[in-house]
Amino acid sequence: MRILLTNDDSIQAKGLAVLWSQLKEIAEVMIVAPDRERSATGHGITMDIPLRAEKTSLFDGKAWVVNGTPADCVKLAVNCLLDEKPDLIVAGINRGSNLGVDIFYSGTVSGALEGIILGFPAMAVSVTEYMNPDYRYAASFTKKLALKVLRTGGICKDTLLNINVPSVAPDQIQGVEITRLGSRKYINSFDARVDPRGKAYYWLGGEVVDHVDESSADDTDVASIRDNKVSVTPIQVDLTNYRAMETLKDFFDDLP
Amino acid sequence: MRILLTNDDSIQAKGLAVLWSQLKEIAEVMIVAPDRERSATGHGITMDIPLRAEKTSLFDGKAWVVNGTPADCVKLAVNCLLDEKPDLIVAGINRGSNLGVDIFYSGTVSGALEGIILGFPAMAVSVTEYMNPDYRYAASFTKKLALKVLRTGGICKDTLLNINVPSVAPDQIQGVEITRLGSRKYINSFDARVDPRGKAYYWLGGEVVDHVDESSADDTDVASIRDNKVSVTPIQVDLTNYRAMETLKDFFDDLP
Repeated sequence: MRILLTNDDSIQAKGLAVLWSQLKEIAEVMIVAPDRERSATGHGITMDIPLRAEKTSLFDGKAWVVNGTPADCVKLAVNCLLDEKPDLIVAGINRGSNLGVDIFYSGTVSGALEGIILGFPAMAVSVTEYMNPDYRYAASFTKKLALKVLRTGGICKDTLLNINVPSVAPDQIQGVEITRLGSRKYINSFDARVDPRGKAYYWLGGEVVDHVDESSADDTDVASIRDNKVSVTPIQVDLTNYRAMETLKDFFDDLP
Repeated sequence: MRILLTNDDSIQAKGLAVLWSQLKEIAEVMIVAPDRERSATGHGITMDIPLRAEKTSLFDGKAWVVNGTPADCVKLAVNCLLDEKPDLIVAGINRGSNLGVDIFYSGTVSGALEGIILGFPAMAVSVTEYMNPDYRYAASFTKKLALKVLRTGGICKDTLLNINVPSVAPDQIQGVEITRLGSRKYINSFDARVDPRGKAYYWLGGEVVDHVDESSADDTDVASIRDNKVSVTPIQVDLTNYRAMETLKDFFDDLP
């Protein structure tokens, strides 16, 4: 069984190494990862410069470094670099959560998404702490889940699993929940400054506001993480809003 | 009424200018657009360098040029540049189609998506021809649709409209259809070459394969375009696969 592993924090990231050391116990693992951090690249791909792929001696020599995004890495791996197709594509472990609206910006989720687009089972894994993340539980959980996916031949068709794991000691984890994407907003998104030449510039920043419904019926990813549970959210690739198709039926009647 | 206009082909793009000249007839139009082409940037945002916004004298002096992605442009416009909030955000007119799976990579769709995330009605507009696009019908259609959206106070909540317009003379357009995202795949995605120093590099390329069902029941965007019709696809922001949440219920029972 073969796993393609990628991330958006680069080939040097600790989360990648921790996950690799677990996954190689259950499968042949090939790594194709970016040469530098590519966080918040969304589902970007590289079309204006050529891509380079350098084989590295890291990770038992089964790894390539690419000057592109996570989506580039997966595309290039499947089309050019790997001798055989993977049975599963895993992106992570990301340093920092990917909850709610984050999934649109996340390079980690994008790596898994590209896997789904190309027809492979795929999952994205993140720990919900940026400064001093504890990857242990996330890595062992992903190994068990990967093994199950490999044995059962997939998860849901056209659906990636977005997994967020609390950054706590393994014995503090309170369980696993299947969740929907929660409500996460960013406020005060820019820090406006003036450079030494008197010209304005803007740092994208912003504070996270997670809306968590206090009722027990709150089945969102942000609520799971609040409760120290692993959150598993199935993410679909068909973004058509079918209900809106009905609503809009007559909307265009008077347009040319 | 105020419209924020952006794109991913840059401030110099013809599609932006043609659309602006139509939209300014019905609203105050502010442009915030990238300084260079940002096609295929997906929903990337810029976090590793600061953003700059230069006011330009183009477009009646109501335009800024930003060193970022379409999502950056919309974020920066709403949070820092505009004196008043827009009533509608329009991204386009893109040079080339954004059909099916393209929407994940499209900077144009991303500009509109950021609008929806920030709570504004938004639409993305593309013409389905890259080499010699005819923007006329796309511009006049978008004007009429924008006017209707402004008058009726929005479209569907949390849903952006992804509009593709055939690049044909206005009298060749065969109507408007509400569509779902179709099946579009890219094959032979990379062109592998060797540089003058003997090192391999890869150009992302690939040929489009649109699967169109010949039956009349084919209500996809790719089928509409084949038939010289305008395609309007409602795209949702909640990517949770609710059906899969059910399916997965018991999947994790034996995991820790």
